[in-house]
Amino acid sequence: MLVSFDVSRPRPGASGGVYPAQCATRTVLNHVTSKWGVLVILALEEQTLRWGELRRSIEGISEKMLASTLRTLEADGFVNREAQATIPPRVDYELSERGRELALRLMPLMDWIADNADEITAH
Amino acid sequence: MLVSFDVSRPRPGASGGVYPAQCATRTVLNHVTSKWGVLVILALEEQTLRWGELRRSIEGISEKMLASTLRTLEADGFVNREAQATIPPRVDYELSERGRELALRLMPLMDWIADNADEITAH
Repeated sequence: MLVSFDVSRPRPGASGGVYPAQCATRTVLNHVTSKWGVLVILALEEQTLRWGELRRSIEGISEKMLASTLRTLEADGFVNREAQATIPPRVDYELSERGRELALRLMPLMDWIADNADEITAH
Repeated sequence: MLVSFDVSRPRPGASGGVYPAQCATRTVLNHVTSKWGVLVILALEEQTLRWGELRRSIEGISEKMLASTLRTLEADGFVNREAQATIPPRVDYELSERGRELALRLMPLMDWIADNADEITAH
């Protein structure tokens, strides 16, 4: 699938290309680009995952960090959490419509980084 | 200007959409999405800036953090630093070709975040 974006449009609220310290844009940027936020969103972009599956798919994440990252992404409306009334309880996580819109814009960035990371770190 | 990306291609090195802990992709991702990395890249996407201009354009950044962020972005080859032999010394910073490739992929993400941040934080 090809996605296209207009990158020459004006940026309301930005000055010199940068957003002021107190604006909501910076808050959301920090959530999205937190150490684990990007990886959780990319993992859920492929499929709905249970807590344990999510933890295993993101090598190196601690339970505490996964819980904290999911809480932030859920509060921002990027991730939907669905608890099943089973024994033992089962909790599924999936991207919301908003989360999918975000993922579409993270994927080109991640793909480019993955393609170029070896050369960049050897630099 | 319209930019287009193919987001359905396979992701070599990724498993379940996520990159392993030790791979260079994660290192570069952390540099690019560091608290200030995105903002420095976006500021330089508009124009070449001197140290003081860069500091003033990114509200809230300390001298120490700006120095550290620029060192990382320069080491990764995203930013070129040019010292002019003037008195007082003048140092210009600009995006490299690689930095511009990165910026093209950061702009759709930032534009979307800026458009939606108020609604997201009110959520």
